[in-house]
Amino acid sequence: MRITITDPGDPRLSDYVALRDTSLRKAVETERGLFIAEGEKVIRRALEAGYQPRSFLLAERWLPGLADVLAPHEDVPLYVVTEDMAEAVTGFHVHRGALASLHRRPPTPMADLLGARRLVVAEDIVDHTNVGALLRNAAGLGWDGVLLAPRAADPLYRRAIKVSMGTVFSLPWARVDDWASALPRLREAGFTVVALALTPDAISLDAFVAAGVPDKVAVVVGTEGDGLSQRWIDQADAVVSIPMQHGVDSLNVAAATAVACWALR
Amino acid sequence: MRITITDPGDPRLSDYVALRDTSLRKAVETERGLFIAEGEKVIRRALEAGYQPRSFLLAERWLPGLADVLAPHEDVPLYVVTEDMAEAVTGFHVHRGALASLHRRPPTPMADLLGARRLVVAEDIVDHTNVGALLRNAAGLGWDGVLLAPRAADPLYRRAIKVSMGTVFSLPWARVDDWASALPRLREAGFTVVALALTPDAISLDAFVAAGVPDKVAVVVGTEGDGLSQRWIDQADAVVSIPMQHGVDSLNVAAATAVACWALR
Repeated sequence: MRITITDPGDPRLSDYVALRDTSLRKAVETERGLFIAEGEKVIRRALEAGYQPRSFLLAERWLPGLADVLAPHEDVPLYVVTEDMAEAVTGFHVHRGALASLHRRPPTPMADLLGARRLVVAEDIVDHTNVGALLRNAAGLGWDGVLLAPRAADPLYRRAIKVSMGTVFSLPWARVDDWASALPRLREAGFTVVALALTPDAISLDAFVAAGVPDKVAVVVGTEGDGLSQRWIDQADAVVSIPMQHGVDSLNVAAATAVACWALR
Repeated sequence: MRITITDPGDPRLSDYVALRDTSLRKAVETERGLFIAEGEKVIRRALEAGYQPRSFLLAERWLPGLADVLAPHEDVPLYVVTEDMAEAVTGFHVHRGALASLHRRPPTPMADLLGARRLVVAEDIVDHTNVGALLRNAAGLGWDGVLLAPRAADPLYRRAIKVSMGTVFSLPWARVDDWASALPRLREAGFTVVALALTPDAISLDAFVAAGVPDKVAVVVGTEGDGLSQRWIDQADAVVSIPMQHGVDSLNVAAATAVACWALR
């Protein structure tokens, strides 16, 4: 349903306002149950993954390239705007003027991921870029899914989706509601819980791999600032480190996850 | 030499203007031969690595913590400002109000790195975040240095330094002036040149490692958009890929470098 819009204040565009205002977006997206996909490739991936669109906000030149994935959604408002208009609405220079607003799905329960063999468990990673990169790395390296602590950043936030290159739509992930019971539940499901942390008595990743990688592995990573919480370090089946050289304190959490996912795949 | 400044337009602060304006900064920093370090830890690392300061721009509360590294530079202007002033000068919210302007050194020649055993060679990685992350990963995982193509982003750009966590000061790196001769020079110096690329006939990183890692390895990585140039792919001793799953196109270049540095260390 093609609609040409010329007023950036048009209330029909309210899903798209102030895309750089993280706190406002959090409220808007939670209340309306939506998320925003940005860029042709990401919109395509969201639709191919079966997410239902609320509306599209596209510059004219994207229409031919997206025609095939737009076709089944003829009843959905397709707001055609200039790139300047897109900028006026969203408050920033939209990546080549292609946006979609999509319905969130009911959250995946943690239990759905417990049949997997390789999980990344992300403690309080509050940075959307890190969450997106972590998902991309876990997916690319063939891991089965990601569990997120209650305070970890939202994988369906625009920036996280973009950095993940849309892998948030294909890799299974779940929010852990009760963080305190997550570790015993993982162990009960047969996982060896591996805390990735640079504690003095950690085993090196090398040595851990040499001793034989267990059948089911859950790698737990923590925030960059404070690292993994002491509780997980204390209770994990193994504390494993990627030894650092040249005086470097640590790798970024997404890079560390990539190395661990490669070594333990 | 402590100087309190109250006018954000004070010409003595001209090293610090418009820190988010990449093109302006490129001109300012090249012409004056300076770079900017941001944050207490990064300033400390730059000074410890022997870089000579031109001046400091610090909020009062940083003085005690940096006193030991500031002491040998009593003749260098130390501009003490409020955090609001720092913001007014630099045009953005400076990370907790701590900046230093330092002299660049003469560039390291490529030849200085050819005695190493493990080098990362970065083709046209134009994103400062990626260059900084790549340096951090190479350093943390114990590689000996990084060679940068002529068009790769400046590791001494503020954002690159910050993302690298200051490893740009400790890990040797050099700009390759003549890109066309870089590959034969590496080979002449005894390196096995490994192109990291997702070409259909690439060997998987696993298989390459299983066949025995050569004594001297130079891993060449390319830009994320276009990947490595065909010339390097054609001429490399081996083309190696990190196999991707879940429909992911590729890892981010810094994450791919981390995996390769780990596997080939």
